[in-house]
Amino acid sequence: MFELLATDTATKARRGRFTTRHGVIETPMFMPVGTQGTVKAVSPRELHELGAQVILGNTYHLFVRPGMEVIRHFGGLHKFMNWDGPILTDSGGFQVFSLSKLRKITEEGVRFQNHLDGAPCFIGPETSMEIQTTLGSDIMMAFDECPPYPCEYDYAAKSLALTLRWEKRCRDWVRARDEAGEARGALFAIVQGATFAPLRRESAEALTAMDFDGYAIGGVSVGEPEEEMMAAIENAAPYLPATRARYAMGLGTPPQMLEMIARGVDLFDCVLPTRIARNGSAFSSLGTINLKNSPYIMDKGPIEEGCTCPACREFTRGYLRHLVKAEEILGLRLITLHNLHFYLNLMARARAEIEAGTFDQFRREFVANYTPWNPQKS
Amino acid sequence: MFELLATDTATKARRGRFTTRHGVIETPMFMPVGTQGTVKAVSPRELHELGAQVILGNTYHLFVRPGMEVIRHFGGLHKFMNWDGPILTDSGGFQVFSLSKLRKITEEGVRFQNHLDGAPCFIGPETSMEIQTTLGSDIMMAFDECPPYPCEYDYAAKSLALTLRWEKRCRDWVRARDEAGEARGALFAIVQGATFAPLRRESAEALTAMDFDGYAIGGVSVGEPEEEMMAAIENAAPYLPATRARYAMGLGTPPQMLEMIARGVDLFDCVLPTRIARNGSAFSSLGTINLKNSPYIMDKGPIEEGCTCPACREFTRGYLRHLVKAEEILGLRLITLHNLHFYLNLMARARAEIEAGTFDQFRREFVANYTPWNPQKS
Repeated sequence: MFELLATDTATKARRGRFTTRHGVIETPMFMPVGTQGTVKAVSPRELHELGAQVILGNTYHLFVRPGMEVIRHFGGLHKFMNWDGPILTDSGGFQVFSLSKLRKITEEGVRFQNHLDGAPCFIGPETSMEIQTTLGSDIMMAFDECPPYPCEYDYAAKSLALTLRWEKRCRDWVRARDEAGEARGALFAIVQGATFAPLRRESAEALTAMDFDGYAIGGVSVGEPEEEMMAAIENAAPYLPATRARYAMGLGTPPQMLEMIARGVDLFDCVLPTRIARNGSAFSSLGTINLKNSPYIMDKGPIEEGCTCPACREFTRGYLRHLVKAEEILGLRLITLHNLHFYLNLMARARAEIEAGTFDQFRREFVANYTPWNPQKS
Repeated sequence: MFELLATDTATKARRGRFTTRHGVIETPMFMPVGTQGTVKAVSPRELHELGAQVILGNTYHLFVRPGMEVIRHFGGLHKFMNWDGPILTDSGGFQVFSLSKLRKITEEGVRFQNHLDGAPCFIGPETSMEIQTTLGSDIMMAFDECPPYPCEYDYAAKSLALTLRWEKRCRDWVRARDEAGEARGALFAIVQGATFAPLRRESAEALTAMDFDGYAIGGVSVGEPEEEMMAAIENAAPYLPATRARYAMGLGTPPQMLEMIARGVDLFDCVLPTRIARNGSAFSSLGTINLKNSPYIMDKGPIEEGCTCPACREFTRGYLRHLVKAEEILGLRLITLHNLHFYLNLMARARAEIEAGTFDQFRREFVANYTPWNPQKS
């Protein structure tokens, strides 16, 4: 499924191609997040126009609403939402732990009350596989426990052991399906181990031995400092097979993504571009700008000079500022399009730079020019 | 500016063409409402694709935010919002009376505190003309007082007398501009007179004598029963010149618009299609449906069979229902597009039926099949 087309010499960056049932994903690639069966404020047609090659669907959210009976009736998530490209689905684990109430973890899986109406629910490794298969996922994620940050070694080690048993059950589930000759999406494992290098390595090696279609690094973007985030990648990537795609879950800012590409990561997903757009914040190569701010009142320029997104081609910062201040939907729509374009364009640029052998210089210059995002200021 | 192309024989319906500085408006026509410099949730490109030929801008809202300094800096409302078609602007009067605080009406105009920050403001006939000219309006509305419903005869008569003096000052303002050789948009007068037939007639005759570029019927859609609404049209239209366009302000439901076309009205504006979309309600030829309702959960059909709008071409009622329930922006975007398409398509159909001499039958059948909108149910 994954073809490694080129590896950077100065860094560990990889140029690859992942083939799914719904089309090809050129890597490095960013996946817009479609939590509830829609990338917030954006239509599938617009996603195609932006060059999105794959989107992410959230298993927990879709399981709770509209529910699997509805998704099954409509023939899967692709048909339900009218998106014909690849879909990666998460395992549901992360949201079960972060959103649901009255969680009870057993060897079998997790019993919980959903966050919408408190109805009792259960998701375990096999149910997660079943839900993701009903969704018609092109890339399924193994069911894991995502430990919080910070996290004691003992908890992390015990959690990892359980996660590895759960992930093996997911692998066994798809193998049984393969033996029965039934179609399925790819299955990616998730490396856990919190901030502990030996656990990260143990996790990566154990999962590699189980042989998955791809490997994610999880338990990042849970509030840890950036050094810990990079360490989690560095402590796992060397022990993952070069011939499989690698995915850093829930990340990140533009410089973080370039740094992770340099450490051998191929796939990303992140709510930042869509979420901060709804607050009036837009990405640029120098950092984020908040269009609510008064310097933009009279600004006739686009969000970013030279940007070819639908917002920058047709609208000024001054008009966008007015829309954001007046809480008009068109404002967040346009900034969302710009931000997704920025992320997808950054990935396209990274791919081109890797192919040209100039990725390291590009990354250094981009990171040096970019002022990190400050939630207080945006 | 207005060319009367055909008049129906069975009704008073008219097929016309109004030419503005920014293009031609084929009448009967519906004008989507762009209160704050955007038709809510819709881009200018989408408006063109829907076949919108003219939109309405709200003078009061734009005067308060972003304010005239900003609009002037950007070269008018067309450039500010990137809409190159005709724009009709209201006079600001209606919102001054319905939204602002501490209003004081004098012969000169109205002093008030705006609804956003309470800043003291003044709008009178000349300021209204100046603001609308700064906006770059293609069709300006004369400044009027819109009496409430219900309204005593004495108040209505006094209010009308003041309104007629204000409207004459607007006409004098544009005449002075014409004499100075300065470009301007068309100026429409507004017939008032509340529910009193003699006042409506007096208003229409006095304004006709003053010679405006078009005539609106105001003081409708202010809470009155439908019979009063129709009476307001019937009591004014016969006294307006056939050679000028007629505009019923703030109206209406699909059957109401057809009934008014049959009474000789050419132009409409209404927030209904965009407003009820944001609540999950969609127009159909049988009436409105609320997509939140549970019968649509498993519905694989489009909002309306045979509809060619972007929502009906690509999405099911079931998916739209999910989006509305999950409060996803894409849901209200798609229903807004459908509703605007419905209104614009209804006008296109009315024009074709008038041309074919079959408008009366079309109107009767449409109205008979249509279940009136019930706010309680939507």
